[in-house]
Amino acid sequence: MREFLEVTYRISGSPSDVQERTESILREQTIETPAAVAVRYPFVRANMMGSIREIAPDPSGGMLAVLALPLVTASSDPAQFLNVLFGNSSLHADVELVDFRIPPSLEPLFPGPQHGIDGLRRISGVASRPLTCSALKPAGARIDELTDLCRGFVAGGIDMIKDDHYLADQPFAPFENRVRSCLAAVEEMSAKSGNRTIYVPNLSGTPDVIRRQADFAQRAGAKAVMIAPMLVGMPLLHELSRKWLEIPVIAHPSFSGSTCIPSTLLLGKLFRLFGADAVIFANFGGRFSYPPSVCREIAENLRKDWMWIPRTFPVPAGGMDVNRALELVRFFGLDTILLVGGSLLEAGDALTDATRAFSASVQSAAEALRNET
Amino acid sequence: MREFLEVTYRISGSPSDVQERTESILREQTIETPAAVAVRYPFVRANMMGSIREIAPDPSGGMLAVLALPLVTASSDPAQFLNVLFGNSSLHADVELVDFRIPPSLEPLFPGPQHGIDGLRRISGVASRPLTCSALKPAGARIDELTDLCRGFVAGGIDMIKDDHYLADQPFAPFENRVRSCLAAVEEMSAKSGNRTIYVPNLSGTPDVIRRQADFAQRAGAKAVMIAPMLVGMPLLHELSRKWLEIPVIAHPSFSGSTCIPSTLLLGKLFRLFGADAVIFANFGGRFSYPPSVCREIAENLRKDWMWIPRTFPVPAGGMDVNRALELVRFFGLDTILLVGGSLLEAGDALTDATRAFSASVQSAAEALRNET
Repeated sequence: MREFLEVTYRISGSPSDVQERTESILREQTIETPAAVAVRYPFVRANMMGSIREIAPDPSGGMLAVLALPLVTASSDPAQFLNVLFGNSSLHADVELVDFRIPPSLEPLFPGPQHGIDGLRRISGVASRPLTCSALKPAGARIDELTDLCRGFVAGGIDMIKDDHYLADQPFAPFENRVRSCLAAVEEMSAKSGNRTIYVPNLSGTPDVIRRQADFAQRAGAKAVMIAPMLVGMPLLHELSRKWLEIPVIAHPSFSGSTCIPSTLLLGKLFRLFGADAVIFANFGGRFSYPPSVCREIAENLRKDWMWIPRTFPVPAGGMDVNRALELVRFFGLDTILLVGGSLLEAGDALTDATRAFSASVQSAAEALRNET
Repeated sequence: MREFLEVTYRISGSPSDVQERTESILREQTIETPAAVAVRYPFVRANMMGSIREIAPDPSGGMLAVLALPLVTASSDPAQFLNVLFGNSSLHADVELVDFRIPPSLEPLFPGPQHGIDGLRRISGVASRPLTCSALKPAGARIDELTDLCRGFVAGGIDMIKDDHYLADQPFAPFENRVRSCLAAVEEMSAKSGNRTIYVPNLSGTPDVIRRQADFAQRAGAKAVMIAPMLVGMPLLHELSRKWLEIPVIAHPSFSGSTCIPSTLLLGKLFRLFGADAVIFANFGGRFSYPPSVCREIAENLRKDWMWIPRTFPVPAGGMDVNRALELVRFFGLDTILLVGGSLLEAGDALTDATRAFSASVQSAAEALRNET
């Protein structure tokens, strides 16, 4: 009887209308017919009407309405979950999605990340300090040029190398050859240098293509892959993580800014719920203008205790400078992956040295932080 | 050499910064590295930098910037197309997607709807008047109850019956049994009444599940299916239409309001480009508050001449009253599908009569319109 998805919406407009608006949104997210139609069906009347839990003023403006929506609709599959969460209600200009709460019975549908922070630490062999990550770019570089970058990064001791999200299956660097070449270079250079590095291919395409790319990457020995859930569809993240992959999935935020869902909720909670083992987000102080408080809340949502759901690695990124290691480690703490792309690539021939300096600065920042606390 | 995706963004903020902001967005949507990194690669320098076509004040505020982005990145697959269109740029709070233009070489990747208006008219046997459509709901009704609704709708001469978008594969009306039962009832009652009706099952789930549902529905004799592209991922719409289905796909707008992309562009152009044969949108004067001008522009974008892309049926919906047939036919014209759900279902035992009256009113509205013009 307590099987409800609890959703909080912010409703703008006049407070005198809020009860009526909330009732109409409740109807929109449940029976979607005049009540006179729904009550003809005993099962619908007993189970499908949902209810209003609370309506209260939001200190930051508007009213907050908490609805209890029937889980039997939402729990059918990940797309239906989104549909009940914010499907038709998203079409109402006066309604914003604020938050949601799920009951324990959703665990089988949404077990969360397969690996999460603990799993990625095991795979990378990094026990407690922040992980370092860089990116293969620009798009348009040839496979041998990207492979050279891999060698330089591994020699410098980076923990992860991800494809740029513009690398798909283009003629200038076709997917399978790129993945094979980068994996081979990373393996060879890891053996030589004693560093252990994870190369993360970017998967892009329609679902069937991505499934084949995922399969190829996993068989070829990739230890993680990346997708952009908002580009490819969030249900595909769920399917990859639950059905097709045994390796971690890193979520990229591309296209996520096209939504009005707060990024603290979308990246921080929904990506984690749908199975992302690490989530990249645009950090403050780089090319993007997110405030530090939003970045902190995304990171906290990804790794706080949340029912049965394993913790996900936050990956602040987007024009980060290598020199900010101490600041960022202090801000985000140890359970973080620091992604630095362009700032390392600028080093050119000195890529390995620059990577080594970056790794060392993260190491010493972590030690400094440990000594402080 | 003219292989570019042309994208128009609205950039807010001070006009004195707009040149610099536009350059940084151009970099974001292309090389995504400092220019000093990119110019090291001759192929990148020659092909991947993109350019600014125009920057001009927008009469409605802000500045409009037209960028030429390299097609070789965007044309790799439908997800990459979205990535180049509005991937990372969506993460910039001062950037809105306004419009885009594609070159003829995109035709193989994006042929558009398989059937469109002409195909759906052939399948339904309706030569020139607007089609009528209703919905099976509320969610929670049993299969035999939904099947009864089908019989009533067909007897009343409706052209299409779609599942409610809350109908997925829930225990109260499992997908395969529901589809089988509704198809059988529609076929039987069509034979009896002489009316020809299309039943449209709703597909929901992760991509692999949807593909199996699509396959089941098609084999079972469904003549169209429905998905909500924003819930399941737009690339899946493309894949279904290009790869797995020979029957039309109706696109539902659920979750589309969660985006900041104008619905005239998202529903009107992107859904059509990705292969939707008909697009449902929230109409004015019903439960939703879209202005008539937006509804008209969505409809026009769906069916105007647009390069090689077949025309898509607009489906205004969302709390439409049966009595508005004349008004809506006049407003949207003959190449329209009028979707009326709750307003017909309210008739209860008199469903067939109400449906007959609705069909007749659309018929006479169409005749009135033809006589006027």
